[in-house]
Order: sequence, then structure tokens, then C-alpha cells
Amino acid sequence: MSEPPPRGFPESEFRARAERAQQLMASSGLNAMLLTTEADVRYFTGFLTQFWQSPTRPWFLVVPAAGKPIAVIPEIGAALMSRTWIEDIRTWPSPRPGDEGISLLADTLRSECGSAGSLGIPMGAETFLRMPLDDYRRLHDRLPGIDVADASEVIRSSRMIKSPAEIEKISWACKRVSEVFEDLPPTLGLGMSERDIFRRFKLACLEAGLDDVTYLVGGAEHGGYNDIIAPPSDRPTAPGDVLMLDTGATFDGYYCDFDRNYAFAPVVDSVRQAYDVLYQATEAGFDAARPGALCRDVFRAMRTVLERGGGQGNVAGRLGHGLGMQITEWPSLTPDDATTLQPGMVLTLEPAMTFAPGKAMVHEENIVIDPDGARWLTHRALPELPVI
Amino acid sequence: MSEPPPRGFPESEFRARAERAQQLMASSGLNAMLLTTEADVRYFTGFLTQFWQSPTRPWFLVVPAAGKPIAVIPEIGAALMSRTWIEDIRTWPSPRPGDEGISLLADTLRSECGSAGSLGIPMGAETFLRMPLDDYRRLHDRLPGIDVADASEVIRSSRMIKSPAEIEKISWACKRVSEVFEDLPPTLGLGMSERDIFRRFKLACLEAGLDDVTYLVGGAEHGGYNDIIAPPSDRPTAPGDVLMLDTGATFDGYYCDFDRNYAFAPVVDSVRQAYDVLYQATEAGFDAARPGALCRDVFRAMRTVLERGGGQGNVAGRLGHGLGMQITEWPSLTPDDATTLQPGMVLTLEPAMTFAPGKAMVHEENIVIDPDGARWLTHRALPELPVI
Repeated sequence: MSEPPPRGFPESEFRARAERAQQLMASSGLNAMLLTTEADVRYFTGFLTQFWQSPTRPWFLVVPAAGKPIAVIPEIGAALMSRTWIEDIRTWPSPRPGDEGISLLADTLRSECGSAGSLGIPMGAETFLRMPLDDYRRLHDRLPGIDVADASEVIRSSRMIKSPAEIEKISWACKRVSEVFEDLPPTLGLGMSERDIFRRFKLACLEAGLDDVTYLVGGAEHGGYNDIIAPPSDRPTAPGDVLMLDTGATFDGYYCDFDRNYAFAPVVDSVRQAYDVLYQATEAGFDAARPGALCRDVFRAMRTVLERGGGQGNVAGRLGHGLGMQITEWPSLTPDDATTLQPGMVLTLEPAMTFAPGKAMVHEENIVIDPDGARWLTHRALPELPVI
Repeated sequence: MSEPPPRGFPESEFRARAERAQQLMASSGLNAMLLTTEADVRYFTGFLTQFWQSPTRPWFLVVPAAGKPIAVIPEIGAALMSRTWIEDIRTWPSPRPGDEGISLLADTLRSECGSAGSLGIPMGAETFLRMPLDDYRRLHDRLPGIDVADASEVIRSSRMIKSPAEIEKISWACKRVSEVFEDLPPTLGLGMSERDIFRRFKLACLEAGLDDVTYLVGGAEHGGYNDIIAPPSDRPTAPGDVLMLDTGATFDGYYCDFDRNYAFAPVVDSVRQAYDVLYQATEAGFDAARPGALCRDVFRAMRTVLERGGGQGNVAGRLGHGLGMQITEWPSLTPDDATTLQPGMVLTLEPAMTFAPGKAMVHEENIVIDPDGARWLTHRALPELPVI
């Protein structure tokens, strides 16, 4: 097993991230940007903790027009934040529901935006505001004269292009989980429950050096599955089942996100054919995923193969997506997404199709866009459905 | 190892949850309630999936004034939602950024609220709106005449009192993780890194039957730790270190949340004393946690012991909290929280104190409020600091 890449990032990387965002802010006329979610705050600070799972306390990061971001956070996070490149750390004793950081945040924003500036907050697709709506209204009331504008595009443009160090983390996760998938078949036995199989898989990922397996969905059904987001059941696997595991495992806060299919003998022809069509669709997506191509071009390349192969649509609504600090990120491979692929983008290719009533199959691989085309981050799945 | 409790809940439980919320809605004059977060949607439906980790798609649940809730969700979730007690499932093909379910949701809310009704949305402490802010504005624009009010208290009052089946799930998680902690010391060796120790702990939890270890923070520092929310480092443990692991592990979507402390010899007196003070503070909290007592009473009982023991405050800002579908829930054990303890509440007792400059310690146990007082859900920690 190869050594994992170094943890964290050099300060120069955070500086570059802030400066790139600040250029975009300047061209949008934003005096400051307010961020509230785990991924956005971590992207600009390196602040990595599972403590975000507790909904009690909001966390705020203010990206000014120039210079380092300012953390406005609960006292409990000061020690960890002080180990990042952030210097200006303002705290309040939390929980304090009467003023959960709002007065401190308002003062900070006021001094960055002045009396009539423009404050950016991500408000568009795939974003949300991680603070109580009532507190957001209170904040608004404290900032008369300040215009609030959508900063989604600043965040999206910044985070969508991964640095070499980010790609290295994702790549390492992809490689290790690929090996876990490759080693899985001999450990699987007929009659083992989905839950047992999922547990084995998680244990193997942890033993392979992944930090966490935060996402694992799928299951086994006879002749193909219908549900692609379910948790495992206690149903024992049976002859003719098609088993799918779709996982998001992390290394240093970065995800892989791909799946593998296995069959328990006997395998009917329609299942083998579906596997082959999906395999070919993934190849077509890979070939189409070049710098300068649009997301919809990659979608169309895959959909053409799926339709020719008898695919009857799919419920996921897209055939792949961005990947990084979150298990799914912008862009989406849909018929309408006109995002231009650029070097440094990390994507999933995720063709899916219903091939018989109530029977679907999904393939998924992870790729990075290099200057001369796509590169696999995952080991390519086997060209023929592995049979157990 | 005892058998785990059954997965899921009978339909009668979901019906009771909906009816209790609907009574509270009626007394608040709400015609309908809109829920958007994983825990709130799952509470009323049983819809359990890790797919929420993907931020791409919003999910909506509309609780009407009477009858079963209505799911307004992306197509990809229809199969799983149809396996719950929910019958009215309305879907849109997602992702569709131009209309990410908003028109469908607006129509649904309009028919529940009429032309001038009142719509409840959780807006208060520990809540957030899991949908893009721009989409929320669009929704608002489509519902002129409808008053939007805070529904936090409906959700809080409903979820804060756990059913016997919920308590059984939490209890099972607490018991299994208690055993993992008890079995840990012989597997720990001086020089092992925090990361190795964390990995061993996660593996042991999965092997003990927990579904996931979504939360594990802590670490080891000489003579006491300062940071209580950090991820593990690669630093090797050394003589005199105090090691703390604080975990939230889940069974069937319900959390335990507690920690344990261990020391690597030699142990200085101040560390032993801090451990003893925290142990006694937990006992005092347990004794004070009776039906009818207020959260602040339990806080004060613990703080008195901490102050007498030389505690110099702590950065967590509270000495415990609710626990259930989320690793932290309402209420908080703070000087001001006037929530009355009632049978069925599940709480953490989490006394923490700084006992020397930069040196803190935290204890944590989980309890449930029974009609005649508190009951431990975790195995009680050892009365003396375990030394390795």
C-alpha cells in the first residue's frame, strides 16, 4: 500500500484560494462574503472537524475584499481554528440563543462593508445557509444599507477547480477504495445479508487507510435493483441477486464516490447486457470529458450509448457530477448544464439505466480533467460483471 | 452480545408523532408545516438514507393540519419513500436548477394553507433551512397572502420526548460503545498515534454492531488536553499523555454521544484530581436530573461541584444536551435554560473544566429521564482514571 499524501495544505494554497475568490468578488462588486457551511469554511481555512454534525452552534467565516478571512466562531472552536492560517479569530460564548454570534458577526460585516456596501452570501443551487432563519433576519435588520447579493458563483468557480494537492487526496481515496472493491468478492458468500456485506466493506476501507466511510448505499435484488439510495437490509443475498455498493469514503476531508456491481450466480442475459451498456457508456463519457467540452456534451455521449443499449431512463436525473470536499459538488452532467470542463475538475461518470420494469443498474467512476483529456482516478471496473 | 432492537418503527409510532405535532400546530394556528432537514423529515416519515450528504437536491415534507405528511421530493427518493408509511409522494425530476421542486412545493402548500393561511417553518435555535436561499425567496413569492411563522417549538416539543422504541435504539448504541471503551485499554500501546487509536476504536464499534461511527474527536496531550473537537493527528502518544475519545456512533439512525479518558503513565496529581471532580460532577448532575427539574438546575448542580473542585470554566458553554436522531439536540444544560425535564428525555451529562492553563478535561455520559429519576444509558465510567 502506497503512503498517503501529506495531510492539510501549505499556507500558500489557502492564500491562493482566498485571492482567487477575492478577484471574483471584486468583479462582482462584493465588499465581503459570508460563509456558513462546513465545506465553504474549510475550503478557506483548513478547519477540519466533525463537530459540524452538532446543529447547536453556527460558524461564520467572513472573506474580506483583501487579506486573510476572519473567523467569527463559538469559543469551543478557537483552539482548533488557531492552528490554521487564520489569524483574526473572533469568538462568542456559545450556546447563547439570545445572541448566537449575531452582534459580533454584524459588527464584523459592518466594518468590512461600510455603510452601503455589498455582502455576498451563497444562495444558488446546491447551497444553503447554515444558521437559523430567525438569526439571519436579525442579522439583516442590523445591517441596514448593506446590499445582500448571491455569491454562489464565487464559491462555485473557486471550488470547482481542484489544486494538485486536492486531487492527490481524492486520488488516494479512489485508489485505496478501488483495491477494497477488488478484494471484496472472495469475502462474499451467498446468504450473507446486505448489512453484513456493508459492514465488511466499511471495515476493509478503514483498514486500507481511509479516514471514514461516511456514505455507503446500495443493496442486492434479484435480477437488478430499483433503489439506489437505500441503507442495507437484513435480507440474505440469494441466487440471481445483483449487488451494488456505492460509497463515499474520505481521506483528509476529501471524497471518492463510486460504485461496483457484483452478481450472485446465475446471471440472466439482461443483467450482463445492462452491465456492458453501462461499461460502454462510461467509456464514452471518459472520451468526451476533455477540456473545452461542456457538461452536456459528456451527458449526451453517455446517453447515446444508454439509449442505443435499450436504457429506459433513470431517476438520478444526471449521469455524473463534481466531487471533492463534498460527495457531490457542481457541476452536473445533465442535458442542460453548459459548464465548460477545465483542467483540475474532478468528476464522477455515473451512467444509470432502467433496463426492465423495476430493474436498474448504475456504474460510477471518478476522473480528473487534465490538460490533454480525462484521467481515471478509480481503477477501472472489470469489463464483465463479476459473478460470485 | 445482546440482540439489537428491531429496525424502524411501527406505523402507529409515526401516526402518534404526526398527531402530537398537529395538536401543537393547531394551538399555534398553523395550517401546515414545512420541513427540510434530514432529522425532521426522518422523524415524521422513517426515511433513512445517507443520501442527504449530497447537497444537490432539496427534500421537502409538508405536515398538514390533519392526516399523513406529504413528501415533495426528487424522483431519486421515490422508491425508498414508498417503503415508509407515507402515501402521498410527489416528485420532480432533479437536478433541475430552474425549478428545483419549488412550483410543486408551492402548489402543495397553497392547497394546505389556502389563500391566507399560516405556514410553519422551523426558524429558531439549532434549526436551519436546507434549501438554497434563492429558492426560498422564490417559494415566498409564489405564496402571497400566506403568513410564515416559526415552527421551532412544534418540532422541539415533539422530538425532545423520546418514545420507548427510540430510547431502546439509543440505549443499545450506548451499551455496545460502552463495551468497546471498556475493552480498549489492553489494545493501546505507548507510541501508538492518535490516528491509529481512533481507527482501532472505529473498527471495534463496527464489529460490535454499530452502524456507523460518524463522530469521533479528541486526542492525546501531555497532562491534559486543550482542544476537544479536533480530528486525530499522527503524533505518537507519550508518557504522561491524557487521551480522550468522544464519539457519536449510530444504531438505526440514533446516536450515543459520550467520551472516555485514559492516561499513559505517569499521571500527575492534578490530572487524577480533575478526573475525580468531573466524576463527582456527573454524579451530581445525575441526581439533579429528575422529572420537574429544570435544565439550569442540573447545570448548577454540576457547576457547583466543578467550582469547588477548582474548575476554571470551560469553552463548551454548556454541561450537557439532548441526544437522539442528532448527536446534539435541544435542550442545553446551561445557566439559563428553563426547559423542564420530562420522562422520555435523553440527555448527555458533559461536565468539562479547565484545571490548569491550557489543560482541560471532559467527562460525558448519557441518561434518560424516567418517571422516578434519571437512568444511565451508558455504563458508568470507572471512578478512577484508567492508566495504561
